[in-house]
Amino acid sequence: MNTDVASRIAFLLETEKLKGVLRRTSPAFLERLENSAEHSWSLAIMAMLFADLADEPISLEKVLKLVAVHDLVEIHAGDTYCYDAGGNMGKAERERAAADLLFGALPREQADEFRALWDEFEAGTTPESRFANAIDRLLPLIQHRAHEGAVWKLNGITKDQVLKRIAPIGGISSALHLHALSVVDEAVGAGWIAGTEAD
Amino acid sequence: MNTDVASRIAFLLETEKLKGVLRRTSPAFLERLENSAEHSWSLAIMAMLFADLADEPISLEKVLKLVAVHDLVEIHAGDTYCYDAGGNMGKAERERAAADLLFGALPREQADEFRALWDEFEAGTTPESRFANAIDRLLPLIQHRAHEGAVWKLNGITKDQVLKRIAPIGGISSALHLHALSVVDEAVGAGWIAGTEAD
Repeated sequence: MNTDVASRIAFLLETEKLKGVLRRTSPAFLERLENSAEHSWSLAIMAMLFADLADEPISLEKVLKLVAVHDLVEIHAGDTYCYDAGGNMGKAERERAAADLLFGALPREQADEFRALWDEFEAGTTPESRFANAIDRLLPLIQHRAHEGAVWKLNGITKDQVLKRIAPIGGISSALHLHALSVVDEAVGAGWIAGTEAD
Repeated sequence: MNTDVASRIAFLLETEKLKGVLRRTSPAFLERLENSAEHSWSLAIMAMLFADLADEPISLEKVLKLVAVHDLVEIHAGDTYCYDAGGNMGKAERERAAADLLFGALPREQADEFRALWDEFEAGTTPESRFANAIDRLLPLIQHRAHEGAVWKLNGITKDQVLKRIAPIGGISSALHLHALSVVDEAVGAGWIAGTEAD
């Protein structure tokens, strides 16, 4: 085996660790927490299902690559709960150091490609990265609804917080944002998240 | 929400069930069994890492789509252990019925696309489907090695069985097949799988 294949295989082995990084959401129909690897697979399915609902032209191949790598740095940096203001302080620096460590172990060509994809997802300035970010925000909404808002209730999440979280969806897909808003309305109606006025 | 988005969301929810379909392998570094959703994500990473090692030109976008959908029918048909001759009888019919049920719930356009991708993966006649199949066979090898062949030993798997299983890798990537063969040699040497002559 040439050493180039060997170092790619070593990197692949390292990515296995993403299967042990747990998120705050549970997959629909399951009680256990979701890991970031299976979460990333769901985003690939969503990209394929919803690509035509993007309000700007997007490359599906690029979106599929972005979602495959977008959480890899959690192998070293861990998952940070989106509503945890404290945990989100220093998150960017922590994740950049993790990216240096993780992608730096690849041969130059792959290292550059994976790093560029992760940087693009984080920067969120291309239509593809905004679309990847939008489905990344939509999926937990659908999962929380499937669990009748259990995690929202547990953490006392408010309508304002969720609306702010899903706002970027509207920047790339009005159809998906409309769907997200309908889920929020349903969640407020059902008492899963606290309506703003009642607070 | 228009009904078209609604039925796609309903399908997405259905795909969550793949996270509850367990395989015979464990992710490296973890003792629990792997589910088919996180397995599918690993194939996306492998496609990106190894696409240039294909011996024929392949479309990475096509491979990424194929690996995302290739196990979806297991939601209804279950995972069949590759060395279980009995379980593999009737597998094709069982999976076709599952595909009819699963993809039939999508709007026509998406139903046709997802079904065509699954059919392509199953037929294995395009370079992309052969490449997807190759990495699908390579991943468990790498995972079994990480666990020092525990599942091979448990099931009394022989070198002949593994060589037959990985042979198709050579039909699309001599570099990856060479790597797979080196893992088999290591496994025989370590006593994780029974060498043919000793049997």
